[in-house]
Amino acid sequence: MPEYHAPLRDLRFVRDELLGYPQHYQSLPACQDATPDVVDAILEQTAQFCEEVLAPLNRVGDLEGCTWTAEGVKTPSGFKEAYRQYVELGMPSLAHEPEHGGQGLPESLGLVVSELVGEANWAWGMYPGLAHGAMNTLSAHGSTEQQATYLPRLVSGEWTGTMCLTEPQCGSDLGLLRTRAEPQADGSYRISGTKIFISAGEHDLAENIVHIVLARLPDAPEGTKGISLFIVPKFLPAADGGLGQRNALSCGSLEHKMGIHGNATCVMNFDGATGYLIGPANEGLKCMFTFMNTARIGTALQGLAHAEVAFQGALKYARERLQMRALSGAKAPDKPADPIIVHPDVRRMLLTIKAFAEGNRALIYYAAKLVDVVRYSSDEAAKQEADTLLAFLTPIAKAFATETGFESASLGMQVFGGHGYIAEWGMEQNARDSRIALLYEGTTGIQALDLLGRKVLLTQGETLKAFTRVVHRFCKAHEGDAQLAEFVAPLAQLNKEWGELTLRIGMQAMQDREEVGAAAVDYLMYSGYACLAYFWADMARVAQEKLAAGSGEAAFYRAKLHTARFYYQRILPRTRSHVACIQAGAASLMAMAEEEFELGH
Amino acid sequence: MPEYHAPLRDLRFVRDELLGYPQHYQSLPACQDATPDVVDAILEQTAQFCEEVLAPLNRVGDLEGCTWTAEGVKTPSGFKEAYRQYVELGMPSLAHEPEHGGQGLPESLGLVVSELVGEANWAWGMYPGLAHGAMNTLSAHGSTEQQATYLPRLVSGEWTGTMCLTEPQCGSDLGLLRTRAEPQADGSYRISGTKIFISAGEHDLAENIVHIVLARLPDAPEGTKGISLFIVPKFLPAADGGLGQRNALSCGSLEHKMGIHGNATCVMNFDGATGYLIGPANEGLKCMFTFMNTARIGTALQGLAHAEVAFQGALKYARERLQMRALSGAKAPDKPADPIIVHPDVRRMLLTIKAFAEGNRALIYYAAKLVDVVRYSSDEAAKQEADTLLAFLTPIAKAFATETGFESASLGMQVFGGHGYIAEWGMEQNARDSRIALLYEGTTGIQALDLLGRKVLLTQGETLKAFTRVVHRFCKAHEGDAQLAEFVAPLAQLNKEWGELTLRIGMQAMQDREEVGAAAVDYLMYSGYACLAYFWADMARVAQEKLAAGSGEAAFYRAKLHTARFYYQRILPRTRSHVACIQAGAASLMAMAEEEFELGH
Repeated sequence: MPEYHAPLRDLRFVRDELLGYPQHYQSLPACQDATPDVVDAILEQTAQFCEEVLAPLNRVGDLEGCTWTAEGVKTPSGFKEAYRQYVELGMPSLAHEPEHGGQGLPESLGLVVSELVGEANWAWGMYPGLAHGAMNTLSAHGSTEQQATYLPRLVSGEWTGTMCLTEPQCGSDLGLLRTRAEPQADGSYRISGTKIFISAGEHDLAENIVHIVLARLPDAPEGTKGISLFIVPKFLPAADGGLGQRNALSCGSLEHKMGIHGNATCVMNFDGATGYLIGPANEGLKCMFTFMNTARIGTALQGLAHAEVAFQGALKYARERLQMRALSGAKAPDKPADPIIVHPDVRRMLLTIKAFAEGNRALIYYAAKLVDVVRYSSDEAAKQEADTLLAFLTPIAKAFATETGFESASLGMQVFGGHGYIAEWGMEQNARDSRIALLYEGTTGIQALDLLGRKVLLTQGETLKAFTRVVHRFCKAHEGDAQLAEFVAPLAQLNKEWGELTLRIGMQAMQDREEVGAAAVDYLMYSGYACLAYFWADMARVAQEKLAAGSGEAAFYRAKLHTARFYYQRILPRTRSHVACIQAGAASLMAMAEEEFELGH
Repeated sequence: MPEYHAPLRDLRFVRDELLGYPQHYQSLPACQDATPDVVDAILEQTAQFCEEVLAPLNRVGDLEGCTWTAEGVKTPSGFKEAYRQYVELGMPSLAHEPEHGGQGLPESLGLVVSELVGEANWAWGMYPGLAHGAMNTLSAHGSTEQQATYLPRLVSGEWTGTMCLTEPQCGSDLGLLRTRAEPQADGSYRISGTKIFISAGEHDLAENIVHIVLARLPDAPEGTKGISLFIVPKFLPAADGGLGQRNALSCGSLEHKMGIHGNATCVMNFDGATGYLIGPANEGLKCMFTFMNTARIGTALQGLAHAEVAFQGALKYARERLQMRALSGAKAPDKPADPIIVHPDVRRMLLTIKAFAEGNRALIYYAAKLVDVVRYSSDEAAKQEADTLLAFLTPIAKAFATETGFESASLGMQVFGGHGYIAEWGMEQNARDSRIALLYEGTTGIQALDLLGRKVLLTQGETLKAFTRVVHRFCKAHEGDAQLAEFVAPLAQLNKEWGELTLRIGMQAMQDREEVGAAAVDYLMYSGYACLAYFWADMARVAQEKLAAGSGEAAFYRAKLHTARFYYQRILPRTRSHVACIQAGAASLMAMAEEEFELGH
């Protein structure tokens, strides 16, 4: 297993030097407690916990998995104890309101914790991660009484939570949802139905689990407009706030999965369980969407996390493993062969992973700033602009960071040669664990439709323009800078092309709606590469400035410049294929009759 | 688990209609027994065995894996019985010489069997697959006496074999090999050393295992020029040809791997084991290379196999799974939602897999014909040309078919949404099993260096020209054909660019050898897409001809045309990115100092 090191220096580069987080926190009254000292202390504490407690449990979780018993689900050895420590450190409460026992720190700081936790042990991190989602729902839509009943126990970490959406017949299409909620005389509801793929649905880390369940009222309209949201706790709260009666719900079985074995993926049976409506009837989906952006940014982090782990593992191996001589002559003549990091193709793989890890980190923490503004700002115009930008960037971050995260995890294996396939090196687990991120919380295809259909075309390109304006301002500001020209010139061109491409798709979509689906994934990937081009140009700018100012960390900033150059020369050309595929249109996808697909197979 | 259907119709299309295998077999005296009737009978028998016996064991193998015991390695339930049936059907003997009990059928027909076996159960297929490699080595380099001792038992399937190359410190770089061979007074050798990653190194399918081991003689030169080849059987042959004394070798442990759990990947300890030199001393590597092409084509099949399985599974699911309505309006209004195959992005994924499965099948069986010519032809000029073409196409087929096979396996999961991650659907096993093919038998990076460095640049482009001449002749022959223009015109342009690109790399490499390594993988992938462009154009030609002739299978040929169009419009644009990356040169890969890589992580 590769030893995990929390990448604090890079986090500080992105947050403090690139994105100006200290100023950002000071500009929002609700975030002013997040002073540099506080942030530093949290980073250091989290890093230590992740490196020392969570990372060593990562392979344990993979090997043992979770175990279903009639009494409940057992998590892998050590998971429970790690969770106890996590609670003792007060980590669940970080980004929640003081009135419920929270520390009142910004959501974006919670995401840093999620990154480090996820890099150390993604499967473990999903238990508190899902609880965080449930808390956000309660904070946004629960009644005062519901909040008072559930939030303190969730915020303290005594209880955890889940989100119960998927059913056997209903995944991407929540309109097909069948779970029923029958109103009772006492104002509660009886919830009946089967939910699948419920992460952290049952486990032994906490004494109670608060399920947030999507279900239909008896008189609900069909489709997505007839879905309501319910709180369905494993144990009903007692009058004193503690555990009351066991509710009529249970984990029917655990799924056997490709990876994230340490997390319990549950089939949950609700057999007339007592539930409580949250938010307005039939508006459950709308309520879910209010924090969907945060949840998706959280999943985007998974792509970043697996890329970071792949990079750390592959780099160490590439410096130690001796195999063949450099084509241009021996680089370590005193050794039996050169370390494989001398070979250009090994460097290509390492740099690809590095460019994605660092580039996606910039994209995600940029989006996290927007989350803060939307949540905490009192400046309506700023809030509106942040919301527009966030709506645009969220599906990109989710799908692009996870697609490139999986690519990075696979390249991490490839650097190891045959050893990459062997479990003890940890790289194959990293690849298996990373693969889920392209599927859950909306597949890449679903994100792409959200981006192109809902976010871009439905707004006549307004969300895109909000971001291309940011890029345009950057290009304008640096157009005379000879040192940045290698980045700014192609970026400006790309930014222009982005708009033109969108317009063309929009025109085609007016003729044929299928053009949207046909272009969507290529458009999303194009957009992801374009976003990272902006962030890499801006990172190069920071690096140039620091070097010009005679920074004592010249090598660190040089590495940023080298990576930016690599990104522009070796990764950005992928946009050429995506443009051509988008321009090809829907015809070649739609021409084949359904029955013709199988012929010959 | 998806039910497996042997894709016999597509195999017949590729072999009989596209590549003219019947005529090919009749043109080679050694292959004339492979009449259409014989080939058909073998295909049908193999298909039945694969569908009914091997495919149901595929998940069993994944779940149970192999078990190490002090008495030997146990394969998963049913593997031994399936092997017994395979032997009873005479399948191991298919492509071996009648003088050793073989059926004397062409190697290319053996590859069809390997494809179907591999699609049904790749992990199982590796046991006979490795034996086949050992037999080929003995046939090519063993003495008459060695052949008489070992081949009949191997050909009958009573014994199996392995290839023992890799050691802990030596993978891609066989020059670092340390296993020692000390000559004994009786002409035998004592072999000592540790080999790792030995597929099928120890198991319970057969009574004896004949290891072909690379080792060094005491006076051997350093590096790759001091390696010799030895036969080291698990049991020494007795005077009557049966089992004699147990040899001093053992399986020390089994590796825990990402996939192919049903195959035993062994650490093999040779503790002064008795071995026999095959071929000339110190020329072991050269001997290995004589059949390396066949072995690599065999691994290329793995990419094809996992793409085929992904396609069958994903297509079935896409037709059954109901989720959302088509953007252009309901296609199945009587159902609660449309089958997901109506969605353009699902079609994009299915067509991508289909284009790779069928395209790589054409490439591989084209290469298999060349294998036949090299092995069986008495026409020296034809043999030489085939050898040149095969040298060029082998690294492409191995790396490109396995890279796109893994991509296809991953897309196969993606079509299933969240269910793709769940073991019971079989798609995640297919992806895990497929991942090894990019690593063993030479990684993608090693194949790329072989292609660009050794095969293309070292011959001043001669091997490339041998293939581009084939493409050029095709383009010339059809340049006036309006119906094929959509394929022929871009293919001709690509063919020209291929040569120009190569020339440019060659010029740059004269300045800096690192340019070869920097361009290699992009060059290989470019070449793979170009090869498939040729085969898809030629498949479109066959389809057009059949349609023009009023074929009763119009839908089958229309599907070929649709897929060819999809390939040209939606896959071939990937060459644009590879060209740009190649043109970017080595600078951005080599600029980063080794110490700079880790900064921030």
